[in-house]
Amino acid sequence: MTRFGFRVTHRDGGARRGLLTTAHGEVDTPAFMPVGTQGAVKGMTHRDLDSIGAALLLSNTYHLYLRPGDDLIARRGGLHRFIGWSKPILTDSGGYQVFSLASRRTIDEEGAHFQSHLDGSAHLLTPEKATDIQAQLGSDMAMVLDECLAHPAEPTVARRSMERTLRWARRARDRFLALRDDRVTGVTITNPHQAQLGIVQGGVFAELRRDSVAATVDIGFDGYAIGGLSVGESTEQMYEVLSSCVPSMPDAQLRYLMGAGTPEDLVESVARGIDLFDCVLPTRNGRNGQLFTSRGRINIKNARYAEDDRPPDSACGCYTCRTFSRAYLRHLFMAGEIGAATLNTLHNLHFYLDTLRRIRESVAFGRFESFRLAFHQSLSGQPIDF
Amino acid sequence: MTRFGFRVTHRDGGARRGLLTTAHGEVDTPAFMPVGTQGAVKGMTHRDLDSIGAALLLSNTYHLYLRPGDDLIARRGGLHRFIGWSKPILTDSGGYQVFSLASRRTIDEEGAHFQSHLDGSAHLLTPEKATDIQAQLGSDMAMVLDECLAHPAEPTVARRSMERTLRWARRARDRFLALRDDRVTGVTITNPHQAQLGIVQGGVFAELRRDSVAATVDIGFDGYAIGGLSVGESTEQMYEVLSSCVPSMPDAQLRYLMGAGTPEDLVESVARGIDLFDCVLPTRNGRNGQLFTSRGRINIKNARYAEDDRPPDSACGCYTCRTFSRAYLRHLFMAGEIGAATLNTLHNLHFYLDTLRRIRESVAFGRFESFRLAFHQSLSGQPIDF
Repeated sequence: MTRFGFRVTHRDGGARRGLLTTAHGEVDTPAFMPVGTQGAVKGMTHRDLDSIGAALLLSNTYHLYLRPGDDLIARRGGLHRFIGWSKPILTDSGGYQVFSLASRRTIDEEGAHFQSHLDGSAHLLTPEKATDIQAQLGSDMAMVLDECLAHPAEPTVARRSMERTLRWARRARDRFLALRDDRVTGVTITNPHQAQLGIVQGGVFAELRRDSVAATVDIGFDGYAIGGLSVGESTEQMYEVLSSCVPSMPDAQLRYLMGAGTPEDLVESVARGIDLFDCVLPTRNGRNGQLFTSRGRINIKNARYAEDDRPPDSACGCYTCRTFSRAYLRHLFMAGEIGAATLNTLHNLHFYLDTLRRIRESVAFGRFESFRLAFHQSLSGQPIDF
Repeated sequence: MTRFGFRVTHRDGGARRGLLTTAHGEVDTPAFMPVGTQGAVKGMTHRDLDSIGAALLLSNTYHLYLRPGDDLIARRGGLHRFIGWSKPILTDSGGYQVFSLASRRTIDEEGAHFQSHLDGSAHLLTPEKATDIQAQLGSDMAMVLDECLAHPAEPTVARRSMERTLRWARRARDRFLALRDDRVTGVTITNPHQAQLGIVQGGVFAELRRDSVAATVDIGFDGYAIGGLSVGESTEQMYEVLSSCVPSMPDAQLRYLMGAGTPEDLVESVARGIDLFDCVLPTRNGRNGQLFTSRGRINIKNARYAEDDRPPDSACGCYTCRTFSRAYLRHLFMAGEIGAATLNTLHNLHFYLDTLRRIRESVAFGRFESFRLAFHQSLSGQPIDF
């Protein structure tokens, strides 16, 4: 098994191409992680994901902790073995889901008290507990528990929250190192090569973001994520936060933008130095009948597609576009067929992964700026539902 | 393009192996058709079906007529082109669905008056209309409209119904020949090599069944189906009907048992001379979490599988069994993941298709009887949920 590592292999302006190494294989970056919330990407089999070149998955600690439980997964040998996925996995900390899904949650310095959205049972998620759960899951990259701030927030509120996130990060790191040094009992470490990433917070405030970066880097993690974006702020605000954060993040380490975004967001974030992404847009929107294409988005339930024999995206080489017409995909969606979710999701994920492939190639050949321009030109001025 | 044809290539006792030829390719028989009601097998992509060797599909005329409509499908060039499936397709007549799904249906000599289960709109399905719709769909094998008798039925009721089915069969055949001879306007024939199969009815009454066979064969079709079984009669009654029907059916033509059955039913029906099957059991039960295996059925939601690391069927080579444990499949099912439907359905269809493969091989090598014995022995005496 290989230890966790990351190195930048090419640079082009602010964009970088890199190689992420884990015990479960290597990943070329910039990379996009399909979201497999409950240990499966909704509508996809693992071999569907293989067929479109998915190199790593994100899975949600909150969901797996509640069902089937991290103890059960640890007894199965960890998440990789349990779900039959041999490539890298990143797990989040569960914090975001506690804030967005759980009922009756209260946050204090200790952690997040909440009730399960499944059965109402009471739970406490602390920085230590989130670290322990992920150790039992055995993901290749674990995230620290952070406090998720609602947008918009006052600067003073945002600072208090950011500072709590820092104290939690310190506790999470201490726990992670204690687990690594075998100083914790009752936790089964199913992947001894797990890495831990810190999370930068601070809302849309440049100064808070810079303070957060400095203090998080001071704790010292195997990579750094930017959290608290894609929560309702404008695109411009998001790009500004990236511009204010990224330059002070360690150049030699992995940079992960959490929960973003549209295809355009990915290109713009890579331009600002981001290496890793996850987002539910391609999967969730696919299930809702929205397809991302090189010429804009298509809402497949639109009546105009009822007799449209074209593929969703004539520039796309995915199984869906090679095989099926908009007319058929609309029929499947209108008829409530499971296959609609599968074929739409497959296309959307292929579009995302293919965009990342093209980004990596353009960075390697020093042509990122021309790719970026062409990408935006292809999308701009196109009507939705062409 | 090749015209429709069928020939028996091997015999072993009452069982036969054959070769079905259509404009969309050849099919080795005995064969099983996965049910793609609305032009898709629920939970499967076409390439999933390819991967398990599905050689032909059944699709439902009732559903496609109501949505998206046979006119729309004809404008797309027929069902094969519309759904992107290049191998053979059989369509039913819509009769069974009118009887089981439609509301406010009344049957008279003209046909079946009913209201759509989708929007309550009023429709009339006649023998001619069912033939026209299937001509527009362009399936490789079309079925005549038959009257579906409820079980149990009195002999006199069963005879009246069987005789109406015969009159309808005559009208359907006349219409089919008129379409072929270009004597009908307003119907787009999307597959000039479509074949038409007659349907034998008569309930569980041997004499009615024999009369129905004789009169249906007298009309003259490209093959013959046995309808009105798998509607609540006992297994013994079904086997008795087969034994009373099949010997008087034309030896050189295709014999299709509609809507059956369990894996055991398939083996026993082949022993009685059946060549073709369709059934929703592997797909519907798969979505409900029931897996057919070589040792009996498994209900995957059973708590006993929560920590069971074995594949569903250790004798099975399907993607599901090669990759996933019962514990993971149970998790997916309990979590309501779409992938549960896909992986369970894939296994069940593989099990059905593999059973047919083994049947064909055993017939070709003159070992059907020993296969039949071993198959039943493997299943018998096994507890459900082992």
